[in-house]
Amino acid sequence: MSTVSTARTVDWDGTDGGAVTAIDQRALPGEYRILRLASVDELVAAVADLTIRGAPALGAAGALGVALAARRHPDDPWRVRAEAERVAAVRPTAVNLRRGVERALARLDEGADAVVAAARALLDEDEATNRRLGRRAADLLTELCPGRPLRVLTHCNSGALATVARGTGLGAVHELADRGLVAEVLACETRPLLQGARLTVWELREMGVPHRLCVDSAGASAIARGLVDAVVVGADRVAANGDAANKIGTYALACAAAQSGVPVVVVAPDTTVDHATASGAEIVIEERAPDEVRAFAGVPTAPPDTPVYNPAFDVTPAALLAAVVTESATFRDGAWSVPVEAAGAVAANAGSACGSR
Amino acid sequence: MSTVSTARTVDWDGTDGGAVTAIDQRALPGEYRILRLASVDELVAAVADLTIRGAPALGAAGALGVALAARRHPDDPWRVRAEAERVAAVRPTAVNLRRGVERALARLDEGADAVVAAARALLDEDEATNRRLGRRAADLLTELCPGRPLRVLTHCNSGALATVARGTGLGAVHELADRGLVAEVLACETRPLLQGARLTVWELREMGVPHRLCVDSAGASAIARGLVDAVVVGADRVAANGDAANKIGTYALACAAAQSGVPVVVVAPDTTVDHATASGAEIVIEERAPDEVRAFAGVPTAPPDTPVYNPAFDVTPAALLAAVVTESATFRDGAWSVPVEAAGAVAANAGSACGSR
Repeated sequence: MSTVSTARTVDWDGTDGGAVTAIDQRALPGEYRILRLASVDELVAAVADLTIRGAPALGAAGALGVALAARRHPDDPWRVRAEAERVAAVRPTAVNLRRGVERALARLDEGADAVVAAARALLDEDEATNRRLGRRAADLLTELCPGRPLRVLTHCNSGALATVARGTGLGAVHELADRGLVAEVLACETRPLLQGARLTVWELREMGVPHRLCVDSAGASAIARGLVDAVVVGADRVAANGDAANKIGTYALACAAAQSGVPVVVVAPDTTVDHATASGAEIVIEERAPDEVRAFAGVPTAPPDTPVYNPAFDVTPAALLAAVVTESATFRDGAWSVPVEAAGAVAANAGSACGSR
Repeated sequence: MSTVSTARTVDWDGTDGGAVTAIDQRALPGEYRILRLASVDELVAAVADLTIRGAPALGAAGALGVALAARRHPDDPWRVRAEAERVAAVRPTAVNLRRGVERALARLDEGADAVVAAARALLDEDEATNRRLGRRAADLLTELCPGRPLRVLTHCNSGALATVARGTGLGAVHELADRGLVAEVLACETRPLLQGARLTVWELREMGVPHRLCVDSAGASAIARGLVDAVVVGADRVAANGDAANKIGTYALACAAAQSGVPVVVVAPDTTVDHATASGAEIVIEERAPDEVRAFAGVPTAPPDTPVYNPAFDVTPAALLAAVVTESATFRDGAWSVPVEAAGAVAANAGSACGSR
């Protein structure tokens, strides 16, 4: 069985005319399999059915989709553009997907090889970014909690599976584990879609890191009982003032952490920081489908027409965070250590490890 | 279809030689049906398989089980005692069950009619207690949040279904609704066993109270966004200093409520207050079976051997509570309004609306 540390979540396979490879995230945790997507149709289907999910991974998939189209139709740029648009449109709210498409498409005039090279460069950049921010976050965590292996609480999946490789929040945990500094990870299951139970637990097992799974509401209790040294999560979006939007449930953990003096560290790429957004109050909270809450795996948990409050994420004010760590900057004590990239100049693979889904 | 306000969760039916009636809580919310349990075997099975759950309801079931045995074997007190022991033993950790058994058994020398009368008195007392504490809690809530119908957040099921009738935390909501003072109830689903989604939502619908369901971790977000006027819950156990143990997840909501200045009110009978326990730090946290967390309705949510942290409840310190309200006393600003019943003198139907399960 391959491990998450050797296979990228999405990748380019140059053999046999080229294809996209992807870890099938629908099959996890029951089965680990790598799919070979040799046509744009197959790639579109994999994005549509969440075989590939997570904002950075979707950015990579967008670029790889264009690479696939360019390889299939090397002499028909109009056809490639049409296929690229089809890829970008399959999940219209996933901004990373379109950015990835556009970045690869920008090289189309140079030919198919250049498009493939652009897509592969995006993959390499995502992995390099994640390794950098993981190291920076691990350094900070060892400064905040010195002298001992840490008991880390995490929420949702901010791991390799949400990115091309390595991950953000869970990437920092991976880095700590590589340094022998993880005693245990407590993973919240992350209702309603259970990314923690399904994906984070699987990644922790692949890493060989001791871990336990808990219901989301037990995270606060673990903090209060002194079972947690630090809370480490990804982010969907970080405002200029350090407020962080992340998967629903992050805020509750931060409130409990504040009560107990446990540091909360947000780990996300520079591109997640949106300097056009002054504070979290400006972030619009997306509500998702009610059936995510009132049923599970097709089994109803409540009367089928029950009204539902189902926000996709919440906003944790900077005051409750020990730090926001990116690959190049740290927000701490009310200020950024260095100016991070302006919102208008985001790279193609912008977004977070816990974004979109 | 009967409504929850007309049928008791458990009751005595004096016709045809006597029987216990019980709302089948396994069938909710899909189906509402009242079972007639005419033998001790049937009652034991109903307690074992959670057809009847909730600490006060189990206390009533214990007394009713003895009544059933006394009616079936009016001339064989030894047989009645053996049957009573069988009822008490079916859920050995449910202290209310045994207390209910003992209270009815204490009248056995006076004959079967006296045993039935003792059981029925216990039912009447539970309902009267709940109506009193609901009124007192509603009075306090209108004092804390005057001049408007309230948006209440609740957790788990502290409703009629957990008691003989009316409930504790949700009983207070029912009382507020009777006064026209409920704008909306936000019900947390209450993982892992989903009592909020399955039972509280059903009760709110029966009451005709506007409501929405959310995942547990969204409760804190709703508080932060100003969607909640008060958090109202039951309790499993309240310490002498006002610290309250309740269903896992209560503490996280209290932390968020503290951040936003939203009052948290615990509603529970006098018998839930344990004056032998000085503070919440002395309360041992029971851990439940891991499969509650790593699977749902038989569908695995994580690798089957994943280690799990599954505390049944958490402890909310009194400092985070606006008040603890019982039928005779209020804990507020660090002190009880009147001395409540000492722990050694608890009534047979001690326990909470959210207890045991």
